[in-house]
Amino acid sequence: MKVGILGATGAVGQKFIRLLQGHPWFEIEALGASERSAGKKYKQAANWIEDVVLPDYIKEKTVKNCDPAEFEGVDFVFSGLDSSVAGEIEKAFAEAGFPVISNAKNYRQDPTVPLLVPEINPDHIELIKTQSFSKDGSGWIVTNPNCVAVPLSLSLKPLYDAFGIEALILTTMQAVSGAGYPGVASLDILGNVVPYISGEEPKVGPETRKLLSALNGTDLELPEFPVQATATRVPSINGHMISVTAKLENPPADVEELKAAYQNWKNPIADLELPFAPKSLYKLHEEEKYPQPRLHADWENGMQLHLGRMRKAEVFDVSFIAMAHNTIRGAAGGAILNAELLVKKGFLG
Amino acid sequence: MKVGILGATGAVGQKFIRLLQGHPWFEIEALGASERSAGKKYKQAANWIEDVVLPDYIKEKTVKNCDPAEFEGVDFVFSGLDSSVAGEIEKAFAEAGFPVISNAKNYRQDPTVPLLVPEINPDHIELIKTQSFSKDGSGWIVTNPNCVAVPLSLSLKPLYDAFGIEALILTTMQAVSGAGYPGVASLDILGNVVPYISGEEPKVGPETRKLLSALNGTDLELPEFPVQATATRVPSINGHMISVTAKLENPPADVEELKAAYQNWKNPIADLELPFAPKSLYKLHEEEKYPQPRLHADWENGMQLHLGRMRKAEVFDVSFIAMAHNTIRGAAGGAILNAELLVKKGFLG
Amino acid sequence: MKVGILGATGAVGQKFIRLLQGHPWFEIEALGASERSAGKKYKQAANWIEDVVLPDYIKEKTVKNCDPAEFEGVDFVFSGLDSSVAGEIEKAFAEAGFPVISNAKNYRQDPTVPLLVPEINPDHIELIKTQSFSKDGSGWIVTNPNCVAVPLSLSLKPLYDAFGIEALILTTMQAVSGAGYPGVASLDILGNVVPYISGEEPKVGPETRKLLSALNGTDLELPEFPVQATATRVPSINGHMISVTAKLENPPADVEELKAAYQNWKNPIADLELPFAPKSLYKLHEEEKYPQPRLHADWENGMQLHLGRMRKAEVFDVSFIAMAHNTIRGAAGGAILNAELLVKKGFLG
Amino acid sequence: MKVGILGATGAVGQKFIRLLQGHPWFEIEALGASERSAGKKYKQAANWIEDVVLPDYIKEKTVKNCDPAEFEGVDFVFSGLDSSVAGEIEKAFAEAGFPVISNAKNYRQDPTVPLLVPEINPDHIELIKTQSFSKDGSGWIVTNPNCVAVPLSLSLKPLYDAFGIEALILTTMQAVSGAGYPGVASLDILGNVVPYISGEEPKVGPETRKLLSALNGTDLELPEFPVQATATRVPSINGHMISVTAKLENPPADVEELKAAYQNWKNPIADLELPFAPKSLYKLHEEEKYPQPRLHADWENGMQLHLGRMRKAEVFDVSFIAMAHNTIRGAAGGAILNAELLVKKGFLG
Repeated sequence: MKVGILGATGAVGQKFIRLLQGHPWFEIEALGASERSAGKKYKQAANWIEDVVLPDYIKEKTVKNCDPAEFEGVDFVFSGLDSSVAGEIEKAFAEAGFPVISNAKNYRQDPTVPLLVPEINPDHIELIKTQSFSKDGSGWIVTNPNCVAVPLSLSLKPLYDAFGIEALILTTMQAVSGAGYPGVASLDILGNVVPYISGEEPKVGPETRKLLSALNGTDLELPEFPVQATATRVPSINGHMISVTAKLENPPADVEELKAAYQNWKNPIADLELPFAPKSLYKLHEEEKYPQPRLHADWENGMQLHLGRMRKAEVFDVSFIAMAHNTIRGAAGGAILNAELLVKKGFLG
Repeated sequence: MKVGILGATGAVGQKFIRLLQGHPWFEIEALGASERSAGKKYKQAANWIEDVVLPDYIKEKTVKNCDPAEFEGVDFVFSGLDSSVAGEIEKAFAEAGFPVISNAKNYRQDPTVPLLVPEINPDHIELIKTQSFSKDGSGWIVTNPNCVAVPLSLSLKPLYDAFGIEALILTTMQAVSGAGYPGVASLDILGNVVPYISGEEPKVGPETRKLLSALNGTDLELPEFPVQATATRVPSINGHMISVTAKLENPPADVEELKAAYQNWKNPIADLELPFAPKSLYKLHEEEKYPQPRLHADWENGMQLHLGRMRKAEVFDVSFIAMAHNTIRGAAGGAILNAELLVKKGFLG
Repeated sequence: MKVGILGATGAVGQKFIRLLQGHPWFEIEALGASERSAGKKYKQAANWIEDVVLPDYIKEKTVKNCDPAEFEGVDFVFSGLDSSVAGEIEKAFAEAGFPVISNAKNYRQDPTVPLLVPEINPDHIELIKTQSFSKDGSGWIVTNPNCVAVPLSLSLKPLYDAFGIEALILTTMQAVSGAGYPGVASLDILGNVVPYISGEEPKVGPETRKLLSALNGTDLELPEFPVQATATRVPSINGHMISVTAKLENPPADVEELKAAYQNWKNPIADLELPFAPKSLYKLHEEEKYPQPRLHADWENGMQLHLGRMRKAEVFDVSFIAMAHNTIRGAAGGAILNAELLVKKGFLG
Repeated sequence: MKVGILGATGAVGQKFIRLLQGHPWFEIEALGASERSAGKKYKQAANWIEDVVLPDYIKEKTVKNCDPAEFEGVDFVFSGLDSSVAGEIEKAFAEAGFPVISNAKNYRQDPTVPLLVPEINPDHIELIKTQSFSKDGSGWIVTNPNCVAVPLSLSLKPLYDAFGIEALILTTMQAVSGAGYPGVASLDILGNVVPYISGEEPKVGPETRKLLSALNGTDLELPEFPVQATATRVPSINGHMISVTAKLENPPADVEELKAAYQNWKNPIADLELPFAPKSLYKLHEEEKYPQPRLHADWENGMQLHLGRMRKAEVFDVSFIAMAHNTIRGAAGGAILNAELLVKKGFLG
């Protein structure tokens, strides 16, 4: 399938390009960016920051405007657009009949748009049928969650299924790559911790609740558990870590029962053979010093969810650490996995 | 007054030496360390890691064994001993008639030993009278809390007084200097976060509750609120940051009432003119990106308690960030302030 | 004396504001910045990045345009302007009769403009008399060198005087603060080294030779030694380090003679009692692991020049490490010291 | 072939274990370490610091003493021993008839022991025949150079062949992994640069000259160019960077001729199909900001030599940046490549 990338010169767009090299199903056909870049060769338009070689055929591609008219022949688009422009551009592509697999936040809370993590809520893709962007239904939007909501909701899903969730208190320690490029100034973060990330905390509760909601007909039945989040930035490169303490409806008797919830949980996409799905979704680290972003974020091509320090809590019921690669599992890689699921389910191709 | 320093070659001992330069009341007379160092000049025994010049008169001092017999003429001792040896040595000094102002953990939970932060529980020094280390009462032990319990309990004291505390959930982001020297290996922490610090979490609840307890005669009445703590190490140099969410007995109506608790709180040592007391104990940062360890840990000579992100919480009642210099306010500087209080109150000198 | 600061909201401008607090001779009267900032209170116009509190009287000052007409009543100005605008603005101020003490590079190679480090070439201030910016000579420009040329030329001056210099090969390891704010992206430098700094290397040779030149009448007689420089960026905050290997005309017999050159060298401003002059200009570290930017850059208020690893070389004659605080000694602090010298010499006030 | 690893629990030993996973020719049979570890399962004896999973069959292996008697059935051994013990142990293994492929420094300057980098001096393996460790010649020692000498000599080889070398002045910026584990204390290197690495500089000249020497019969004819090296430690994880300025015998006319020396150089092992040989030995980066250790050290499995900033120099003739992965190309990976060459040449197996 031929794919286009919107926002191709930005940090997320570059990650799409990198991750799609050699993809068995998807081939990059078109690269879209802002007016400033359009018309230039990609190698001139982009300040390539990935630590692999920029492939030759990408280097020489001419960057297009993010205009559906320029994307003819493309089967669908990935969007790594900044939220300041994603709203209008993604709508225009959907209206023009393109499926849009988006990493932007703009449509995440639209009740007709699936906020999708394949292992959590694959059934939510049925919402696509309720969208009315294009007359014939050929154009639609699917989004992936924020880079904190992804590891958080993945870490919670088996607990939610086994024990129910009543409340969450969490603190994140987020890597600098989450802010894009140039992103965080080195003077702000070298040897430092910044206890605030603009716009981050308000996304965590709503996105997590939407991900864990049940689809009833065309309605999502949202769980109601409150979430208190503190988002901090630390001087790590890749891998957002979350310290979670949870109040559960029917708490496990002990830590073994807690861990068993993960081991017994049935991954709904286990048999689909999606290329970007990790062989083992959960890595439960037993050493207390693990997981660590620098050591583990890249495991399973950055798509694995790392858990550690599973324990009963003195306050509420359980505490644990969750960690995943923020720009792969939490962004571009997650979007690619979404596209793969949509292919398998017949929505794409 | 002439003071001795036990564990003088270690990281805490070096901080004592540094901070006591030019102290108006205390003069370093004797330096004690392990057998390996005893008999050597300090400049040969210690690998000086402080970023100021080692004073000449300290350089040339001969290091003693940590044996009370070698500390004659000293009015009291500061102990920066490792906990593996502090138990016996501090006891020996107290039995020999020396007041011991200790940073070690060994006697913190002894019901006769004050666990002291002057601004929080200055009245606890009365417990000294219940100690029986020496027959004539001339030798005794006072301790300061762990470097997390210090900023945590300081940040809580006005809330405890104004609203009462029912439960705490917290995550720390601790600087590498907290592990001493050589301490944390650079390969473990550069560009990384380690979600565990051995032995740290179990101290937080008990020490905080003891600090906030009421002295009734010779008994401490401990509050009972539970504490769920996750201690992590981040690549900052100085300054432990804590993300706290608290359930209060009588929560404030809004964030203004919350902040007012700090502004209205009466500092019990405000009028004592202790040299190491910060002029302004609490710095309430209004900018959401503050406090930050690299920018603020050194303010007021490292003795100030920084607060930020004061807000009402979706779960429990309030959330905030607390931060203080871990090796000054949270260790050697706190011990010196303890000694100063003890002088003013007539226990020393 | 009342001073103005041009470029007051930038990183260098902020450093001027910080360093001038409590200065015995100079008082900040006017703050100038770009159109975008002019008319706003300083606290609104500037993103204060210094790790001290922004003084209240500065906070409330209204930022002016960098227009001489708005700076009436000011005795002279410090310029922390970006080189993209410094050329025209500094000229306009000089033409309007203001002495300009500049940190910008624009006039450093102007033969009538002193490129000044008080300890190296205080006599060069006589060049001011050859300037023709203003008719009555009341307006003129003095510059300080690039943040690498400062520590390099200071480290070389006693060697130049004692042994002569024939050639230099050097590699710098520069701190991120040298790039201003936001400056270096954290994604570029965390756990990394960047072997290039745009525009840096070509300044090193010419500025160092001008600093070491002899004033003959109104002409500078430039030495001719070639300089091969490689400028790299490393993840340190403050303090540029330089690894220097030098070929000398009359090399010292041994390392003792080499060190003696520094000890015997006569500092031409030693008796002037300039407030910003370090008490001891050179700190010759004997421990091979020193100097280090994080430990030593702040010594003597950031105005000291640190030397280490003094040794005879297998190629050429001598090798050593030089290090100094890049934004204090190498920028704003150096400019303030220049102004102090100009006061003492009767050029200012 | 069955291989043993001496020093298997240390940092270099762990890297051998990691790199040998899935090796087409070599299988790990025996793990040797100190008495303290011998007899334990590897998972208990080693503090595994690599960022990949410790393979199960290694986990359960019982660690042996570094005693040849316990290594029966092993075809040869890799040595990652510390130099404090490598001298005796490696000799004992060679005397007992084992080929020893060593990363330790002890025998590097032995005139009968090849100091080997396959792309530079593959013919030096003939020296093995002059060794007399074992009577029948079955036991012998081959070493790889220090982690600075490897990238330096690789970067010089085409220049040496094309232009000759007269003198070198260089400064290194070395990653913390070069010091092993725990190695560099985080308090020493976070936000810092240390301008000295114990024992490093004296190795650079002699090892580089031995690598570039010509084998004449059984004698090495050493070149005589002097080398002035300054070794510094910076807060990067992997990848030693070197800033080199070289005086050449017949310098190239321009930078094109300089680069052509690399492009025209014939790699003597290009046709041998050694599994660990990089497909492209030299990566000449054209962007001035490259190479960078964090971005490029892992390219070609950590075996590539990165070059950048190729330019004519104002002093001497040429300047450039060389960079390679210090613990792979500069240590364990280099030793494995040595073993592969020795297999192909009939010395092993």
